[in-house]
Amino acid sequence: MKKYISKDQSVPGAAPGIEHDEISSLPGGTGEVSISCIDYSPGQVSIEKISDLENFLSRHRPEWTSVRWISVDGLSDMRVMQGLATKYNLHPLAIEDILQKDQRPKFEAYGGEDSEFMARLFLVTHALQIRDGRLQNEQVSIFLGHKTVLTFQETCSSEWDSIRQRIKVKGSRLRSNDASFLAYSLLDAIVDSCFPILESFSDRAEELETLILERSQPGLINEIHQLKRDLLKMRWAIWPMREVISSLQREPHECIGETTHIYLRDLYDHVVQIIDLIETYREIASDLTETYVSSVSNRMNEIMKVLTLIGTIFIPLTFLAGVYGMNFHYFPELDQVWAYPAFWLVCLVTAIIMLLLFRRRHWL
Amino acid sequence: MKKYISKDQSVPGAAPGIEHDEISSLPGGTGEVSISCIDYSPGQVSIEKISDLENFLSRHRPEWTSVRWISVDGLSDMRVMQGLATKYNLHPLAIEDILQKDQRPKFEAYGGEDSEFMARLFLVTHALQIRDGRLQNEQVSIFLGHKTVLTFQETCSSEWDSIRQRIKVKGSRLRSNDASFLAYSLLDAIVDSCFPILESFSDRAEELETLILERSQPGLINEIHQLKRDLLKMRWAIWPMREVISSLQREPHECIGETTHIYLRDLYDHVVQIIDLIETYREIASDLTETYVSSVSNRMNEIMKVLTLIGTIFIPLTFLAGVYGMNFHYFPELDQVWAYPAFWLVCLVTAIIMLLLFRRRHWL
Amino acid sequence: MKKYISKDQSVPGAAPGIEHDEISSLPGGTGEVSISCIDYSPGQVSIEKISDLENFLSRHRPEWTSVRWISVDGLSDMRVMQGLATKYNLHPLAIEDILQKDQRPKFEAYGGEDSEFMARLFLVTHALQIRDGRLQNEQVSIFLGHKTVLTFQETCSSEWDSIRQRIKVKGSRLRSNDASFLAYSLLDAIVDSCFPILESFSDRAEELETLILERSQPGLINEIHQLKRDLLKMRWAIWPMREVISSLQREPHECIGETTHIYLRDLYDHVVQIIDLIETYREIASDLTETYVSSVSNRMNEIMKVLTLIGTIFIPLTFLAGVYGMNFHYFPELDQVWAYPAFWLVCLVTAIIMLLLFRRRHWL
Amino acid sequence: MKKYISKDQSVPGAAPGIEHDEISSLPGGTGEVSISCIDYSPGQVSIEKISDLENFLSRHRPEWTSVRWISVDGLSDMRVMQGLATKYNLHPLAIEDILQKDQRPKFEAYGGEDSEFMARLFLVTHALQIRDGRLQNEQVSIFLGHKTVLTFQETCSSEWDSIRQRIKVKGSRLRSNDASFLAYSLLDAIVDSCFPILESFSDRAEELETLILERSQPGLINEIHQLKRDLLKMRWAIWPMREVISSLQREPHECIGETTHIYLRDLYDHVVQIIDLIETYREIASDLTETYVSSVSNRMNEIMKVLTLIGTIFIPLTFLAGVYGMNFHYFPELDQVWAYPAFWLVCLVTAIIMLLLFRRRHWL
Amino acid sequence: MKKYISKDQSVPGAAPGIEHDEISSLPGGTGEVSISCIDYSPGQVSIEKISDLENFLSRHRPEWTSVRWISVDGLSDMRVMQGLATKYNLHPLAIEDILQKDQRPKFEAYGGEDSEFMARLFLVTHALQIRDGRLQNEQVSIFLGHKTVLTFQETCSSEWDSIRQRIKVKGSRLRSNDASFLAYSLLDAIVDSCFPILESFSDRAEELETLILERSQPGLINEIHQLKRDLLKMRWAIWPMREVISSLQREPHECIGETTHIYLRDLYDHVVQIIDLIETYREIASDLTETYVSSVSNRMNEIMKVLTLIGTIFIPLTFLAGVYGMNFHYFPELDQVWAYPAFWLVCLVTAIIMLLLFRRRHWL
Repeated sequence: MKKYISKDQSVPGAAPGIEHDEISSLPGGTGEVSISCIDYSPGQVSIEKISDLENFLSRHRPEWTSVRWISVDGLSDMRVMQGLATKYNLHPLAIEDILQKDQRPKFEAYGGEDSEFMARLFLVTHALQIRDGRLQNEQVSIFLGHKTVLTFQETCSSEWDSIRQRIKVKGSRLRSNDASFLAYSLLDAIVDSCFPILESFSDRAEELETLILERSQPGLINEIHQLKRDLLKMRWAIWPMREVISSLQREPHECIGETTHIYLRDLYDHVVQIIDLIETYREIASDLTETYVSSVSNRMNEIMKVLTLIGTIFIPLTFLAGVYGMNFHYFPELDQVWAYPAFWLVCLVTAIIMLLLFRRRHWL
Repeated sequence: MKKYISKDQSVPGAAPGIEHDEISSLPGGTGEVSISCIDYSPGQVSIEKISDLENFLSRHRPEWTSVRWISVDGLSDMRVMQGLATKYNLHPLAIEDILQKDQRPKFEAYGGEDSEFMARLFLVTHALQIRDGRLQNEQVSIFLGHKTVLTFQETCSSEWDSIRQRIKVKGSRLRSNDASFLAYSLLDAIVDSCFPILESFSDRAEELETLILERSQPGLINEIHQLKRDLLKMRWAIWPMREVISSLQREPHECIGETTHIYLRDLYDHVVQIIDLIETYREIASDLTETYVSSVSNRMNEIMKVLTLIGTIFIPLTFLAGVYGMNFHYFPELDQVWAYPAFWLVCLVTAIIMLLLFRRRHWL
Repeated sequence: MKKYISKDQSVPGAAPGIEHDEISSLPGGTGEVSISCIDYSPGQVSIEKISDLENFLSRHRPEWTSVRWISVDGLSDMRVMQGLATKYNLHPLAIEDILQKDQRPKFEAYGGEDSEFMARLFLVTHALQIRDGRLQNEQVSIFLGHKTVLTFQETCSSEWDSIRQRIKVKGSRLRSNDASFLAYSLLDAIVDSCFPILESFSDRAEELETLILERSQPGLINEIHQLKRDLLKMRWAIWPMREVISSLQREPHECIGETTHIYLRDLYDHVVQIIDLIETYREIASDLTETYVSSVSNRMNEIMKVLTLIGTIFIPLTFLAGVYGMNFHYFPELDQVWAYPAFWLVCLVTAIIMLLLFRRRHWL
Repeated sequence: MKKYISKDQSVPGAAPGIEHDEISSLPGGTGEVSISCIDYSPGQVSIEKISDLENFLSRHRPEWTSVRWISVDGLSDMRVMQGLATKYNLHPLAIEDILQKDQRPKFEAYGGEDSEFMARLFLVTHALQIRDGRLQNEQVSIFLGHKTVLTFQETCSSEWDSIRQRIKVKGSRLRSNDASFLAYSLLDAIVDSCFPILESFSDRAEELETLILERSQPGLINEIHQLKRDLLKMRWAIWPMREVISSLQREPHECIGETTHIYLRDLYDHVVQIIDLIETYREIASDLTETYVSSVSNRMNEIMKVLTLIGTIFIPLTFLAGVYGMNFHYFPELDQVWAYPAFWLVCLVTAIIMLLLFRRRHWL
Repeated sequence: MKKYISKDQSVPGAAPGIEHDEISSLPGGTGEVSISCIDYSPGQVSIEKISDLENFLSRHRPEWTSVRWISVDGLSDMRVMQGLATKYNLHPLAIEDILQKDQRPKFEAYGGEDSEFMARLFLVTHALQIRDGRLQNEQVSIFLGHKTVLTFQETCSSEWDSIRQRIKVKGSRLRSNDASFLAYSLLDAIVDSCFPILESFSDRAEELETLILERSQPGLINEIHQLKRDLLKMRWAIWPMREVISSLQREPHECIGETTHIYLRDLYDHVVQIIDLIETYREIASDLTETYVSSVSNRMNEIMKVLTLIGTIFIPLTFLAGVYGMNFHYFPELDQVWAYPAFWLVCLVTAIIMLLLFRRRHWL
């Protein structure tokens, strides 16, 4: 559970935000960093893997490009961060948000200033996936300018591969639209990746229910709580997306085109649908706990009933056997020939009467 | 439970919406598709079962028709979808919504453009019914234009039969009103079909209560949860209808006539009434769980009390019998003639005293 | 429980609303219908029991009448309904609402048209009363015009008798005010009748608590749930009244006079007070369940403790008795004269030590 | 519990509000009524105990008085009520509110008319105190005019004594401010008297926790519920105060001075703080119930474990003793000299092995 | 628990607010008071430890200073309070708020007057820290003027040390910004100090879960409730911060610069993130309780099963041994040579059959 929500916050009291010239002095993590740049216009596309960032940043952007998407996978190289931050004039608070994990999804509109990029939109969200049976979240940061999209991810994951594919297809809607449509598509891919996860939760819930009803093992309550915690984590990541997208939709922004606006409404519906499903599964998980507890207590009852049965039948018989083991000198029954068979008969009759009584009371 | 909320979402990262020329390449399902077209005006009505869609779409609409209702039952034939989508210029996102099951109920107003149909209202909702004792939901999509209503359903169900009947009746309110009144009537039929379902839930709850009080079988908790899940599913389908109808009512729209507006208020009241009842039944179902758990533990107590009784009465007597079975040489009682009858007397008196004690403490 | 919320809704898909000429063809129920008409002005009052409706409707209303109140008790005679609906031009949806039981409380303002009555206010609410120990609700519909109030009730009940009385008193506030004040007074009587019901709930809760603490019988959980369900039903009937009265108060309406406005505020306060009390009693009922469960388990504990006590004391003694009942040939203790008294001493000492031990651990 | 929320409402259907000439005919209660009148201005103060109300009401108010506070303790004398109601032209609904106990806290602004007093503010609130270990509430009604404050209380209580003291002190803020500041001070005294009550609740919760952990007696659940009910009652009395004060603050009113406005903000903060604390204590009380149930079941477990232990150890030994008490003629062990000591050895070894086994499984 | 939320409120009925001339007469507490004054401008900084307050207050403020921060650690010296209150003309209500512990976080804007300081912002918040394994809160009051920040703390704590450090660094953002940025930084340090606390809660929850699953000791429920109460306390302290910062952000105020506005948005996000995490941990703590209860009952079941097993196996065998210990004269089995070995065989076979039966029912 420790790693449930990993806190990696700055030292309390430290300066808020990270200035451009401070970046390079930050301790970089380990792990590879891969940068790629995709330029496209309705008619042309160029995909470049960037190894020499400095050279890339000094070059001019081609004239034909209508949208440029620079994606950074891996946040460990601080020189990369500094280069991009300086080039695109990123806000100190935004840089801090990129580098700190487990930010709450949010969006910021930095407006009014003359800088090339900064006066634009900044979005933080979380890509979710199931890895090793556990829900993993990865922070994704997206900057949106008039013609540029800048994305930062912790690792190199695959949920955007299909988008890269669609950009390559001539005539696709992505190619013919502006940068905000690309940003929308990236968000859409992240949101849509929640549906298979929810389906896997549905499967887990179903499996758990079968196991509980078949044989209520002690460990199942833990697995139910694991499911609950995954749902909690998903809600934590998705819930704020609702207001983020709702705000994006409500507030007109120079960078967001009209087509994108209609599509954002669709995205909003998807997010609300996911939240509804999360709440539904949370209620189902609660019911599973109830079923589990009730099923454990039912098994307990069954065991208790057998104890009652066997105990209650034999205790009087044992008493009777004890009686005829007494050593009184004057003991008339002991001398009779029929006494021993009669003893067995009495035992049998008593046992049968008790069994019938129990059955009539539905205890058996 | 697996099929509780069947997820059938597009591959994450796939392009949002479905373009008209993409439709035909989609994998069509199995199952029959039946299309019918009803044209009516206050004075005239014509019902046509369409087998050759292409021919139908190429024909002109009769002059006298004030409302045309094309209903498609079955979504498996992609050529049908494409024909209608092209003819009526449906929005790509709307086509996606029709084809994906288990959409959240919603409505979209596509406005401002000049196309014949697209700049109109699009509604997704769910028709509910009880089949094989389980709540089944079927997605229903409704397009509303100025003089045209287009509906898509997964299967051919019967909840709209009475509406078809009412259209045939000359002078009925349906005949004398516009297309929005037809759309309202379709929604009304769907919403009103919830009342018999709720009544069946009421019956199930009543039956469960009787069973629980009579004899708390282990399986009942499952049936309670089944009821709870059906209520959850119903709420999932009906809850968003509230805001859909509320928005329809609030926002004036060119396609919705004045008469329809008053009737929408009535529909809204019905939806709120259904939501109220769902919440009420959910509380009742929760109480049933409580009753069940309490009833199981009461039966348990009854069994335990019998064990206590029999055990507690015989344990001391067995000890006494054991005492007089001891083989001590010096054992004065053993030689007395009155010893054996006295033993039985002591046993009887002890048992009676204990029984009286238990009764006085209300344990019996 | 079946009759908890009796559903009597129209067949799904049937036409919404009931046209005036359809009414007479509806199946009328059984039961008597009694109609009365009260005309009053500050100076004069006339109360008439109407037996011949047709004649009554054809007559002109007296000049001096400032308010006319026609009250219909019993909804079984469809000709009565049709006569009034035609005379006062009632809205088809309103007629449907009157005839269908268990409508959610609501109000409708039909405005703008020239008809005498229809362009006015329509209110549905529920009169609650305790009959045979159960909460019964009766639907009450009120139409308010400029100078006319029309009320429909299922049965002839007595909560408005005091209002009829007050009308007869010359100089009373009712006499000197307009029709809206009469409508307010009718609502006020219905709302105020909730207070004695709440008091009876308070009594039932108190009684249940006493019973639970004295002797937790198995049936009590049912009575608690009965109370809960009555509270649920009351909330279902009262909750929407809040927004009904709040809307009446907020939206100025031509029919509602200024004096009535101030009094509506008071009525609103009463409704909120009732809702508060309902929620309070619901929480108390929840606590009662807790007390019940805890009390049952406490009694269970008491019984278990006695079992433990008696069992634990006698089991070792029985073992000891068994030991000296063994038939070993070499058995030194058996030959001693002191052996038998010593055995009893050991038993006594063991039992006393165990009792002391249990008492020290507070088990006794 | 009966007296939890005493209902004393008017007969349902009775006329709302109480007219001035009706007051004297109402049944007055028993109990003393004490009326005092305090006149003050920054420079002067006069406190008068009024015994002859009629005389007092006919006298003119001194010229120098900037604020007059008439406080009525005890509501049993209807002539007093009528005198004041007529003199200050109180609204019939306000009079009804004063006389009916257990009103929900609220405020009313009667505006626009020319009467001396009526067109002003009317406030109902509840003074809380702990008496005999139970939370008692007493309804307090406050009328605020431009230069007059009129208060009605059920009994003569002491929470305003310090205010009377402060009025006597020359130069105090009360003396130099207007009537609204006096009304604010009265409310502030009532609200602040909640803090000691909350502290006593905190003490009770602490005490209960100690008792539960030490020794979970059956009666404790009742005391927890008592605490919960007191908190419920307090919330019932304080919750509406929030909106009352919030409205007073928001809506400018001719009678409320600017200084009072700032102080009302402070009062609002106090009320919110009290509500927060009530909710916190309610959660703590819920946790106490959990602790109690868990602690009872833990004690139960402890007892069960001892039973298991003793039972499980002696049952096999008793069986062995029984075996050697059998009377078979061919019974080789019985003849051996070592048999008897060996029997004891086997018993001892068995018991020790079982004890070790239990300890290893942490059952001991 | 007593000290959970220590109430230290003024005597009910006492005058609200504390006038300047009343301060010195208040009972000062014990404990040291340390006052420091930091003056800074982008180019210069001066830090002074103030021992002679009177002398300090009489001196003029240096010309170069753009921001002056006077911080008072310790509230026991009333002369200090009076000196500053008079000098900076603090509002009586604000002084009361500083001196009373456990105020709800809030902010007040005193505007419109001409005084040097008073017409500015006043903030109350709580610094949280873990001391001795318990969450401790310390009230912090901040006054913000145009060029002055005045802070009051109960003790001398270290969360602002890093801010003092950053002020000393030339060119830091703090140095180049105005007083409102300093106030923001102080709040930011307090809010950010919550993250390590939340991490420690996460560790405690993890540890508790491990302990519960390993071995459910009776005391663990208490530790879970301790965690819950700490979370409750944290929520109590942080929840109102949300609306405080939200209001600061929404309402433009002369004292809050533009840069600070952007940073306040970031601070708001942090507070919301903390609230989200608190709610998440509260749900986890609830699940822990469930796990604990379920784990305790599982252990109980395990013990019960062993009792059932041993009891159920030996009870019939004991009965059999009892049978052959009977003293009937006619007892054919007793004389057989094979009888004794056969008895053992029967016992063995019975025991094995029962064991197999139990295993097949998964009871073992």
